[in-house]
Amino acid sequence: MATVVAEMSMSLDGFIASPLGEVDELFGWYGNGPVEVPTVNEHLTFRVSEASAGHLRPAFSGAVGALLTGRRNFDQSQGWGGTHPVGAPVFVVSHSIPEGWPRADSTTTFYDDALRALEAAKRAAGDRIVAVSTPTLTRQYLDAGELDAIVVSLVPVLLGAGIPFFSGLSKTPVRLEDPLVVEGTGVTHLTYRVRK
Amino acid sequence: MATVVAEMSMSLDGFIASPLGEVDELFGWYGNGPVEVPTVNEHLTFRVSEASAGHLRPAFSGAVGALLTGRRNFDQSQGWGGTHPVGAPVFVVSHSIPEGWPRADSTTTFYDDALRALEAAKRAAGDRIVAVSTPTLTRQYLDAGELDAIVVSLVPVLLGAGIPFFSGLSKTPVRLEDPLVVEGTGVTHLTYRVRK
Repeated sequence: MATVVAEMSMSLDGFIASPLGEVDELFGWYGNGPVEVPTVNEHLTFRVSEASAGHLRPAFSGAVGALLTGRRNFDQSQGWGGTHPVGAPVFVVSHSIPEGWPRADSTTTFYDDALRALEAAKRAAGDRIVAVSTPTLTRQYLDAGELDAIVVSLVPVLLGAGIPFFSGLSKTPVRLEDPLVVEGTGVTHLTYRVRK
Repeated sequence: MATVVAEMSMSLDGFIASPLGEVDELFGWYGNGPVEVPTVNEHLTFRVSEASAGHLRPAFSGAVGALLTGRRNFDQSQGWGGTHPVGAPVFVVSHSIPEGWPRADSTTTFYDDALRALEAAKRAAGDRIVAVSTPTLTRQYLDAGELDAIVVSLVPVLLGAGIPFFSGLSKTPVRLEDPLVVEGTGVTHLTYRVRK
């Protein structure tokens, strides 16, 4: 069975982007180290600390079987040119299907319902990870009891304002296990299992 | 010179208490372990994991030279009976002085100005730690460039709502060094130095 994991870089005050969606203050750790982590996109190689490389490599070496994201993320990335750097099929939750999609050269598909998208992503992932990469979907899957783990790549900065990772949760408190901690450079990776 | 340190227990979504000020979900780690950490209050002994004991002990063994807090915290604790468990003099920032205070049997004093309170606390602390234990003062001292470190005792829970540790900061981003990490049970202690 697939494991559903939400993963984002977050400031110490809980934001995954500035109010305008900028991530410069949070993504520095993807490029501040000596160890290369290649992706399926030959133009995109991360350069991270040894610790962060150990944390990142599995995701970029087949551990992720499906990716769940939202329309804004898809649009901002221009659909990753058809193939996400992780190399897994992408399931986009969106009220409409963007022009020119779906494409014959891409495994990216579109769903107007978050739970049906999750179902399809789980099927595609098999025993691997379904990676969730938006706060909105994270909230919806947490509320639905569908999230198995949360990975916070905690960045040592206070942004003061921005888009929160966690907000609008309807079933709280959500209790988590103690995290697995990986100490990177400019980031602390915290992997929490959700208690069910 | 004193080191000014803000320290609080915080949920993964950034809250240091429920909307009503309750801390039950966040303070479990103070009593969930086998190692006793005594305080100057003979009725108050913490029972924590070995890791958390190592984190806590210095504060309760003289490392804290002064404590800065707000009126709500003072009132809720009924002035700690005159002596805070840390054993250091307490500097309360408050617009008014509560009835019956100051007391001859207590080193607790009152200031209507946060920066003058900090000055007095620093003098009292000498080369030791000035501990700041409210979000409001944390924000004020961060904005004033007076905070040297932030200790987040990060609790594996999402509260969904509550009183945030960090809010209303006027000078952002505030950049921090990578944290010292202590992995407790039901808590991860993260000590960040503030970059100046």
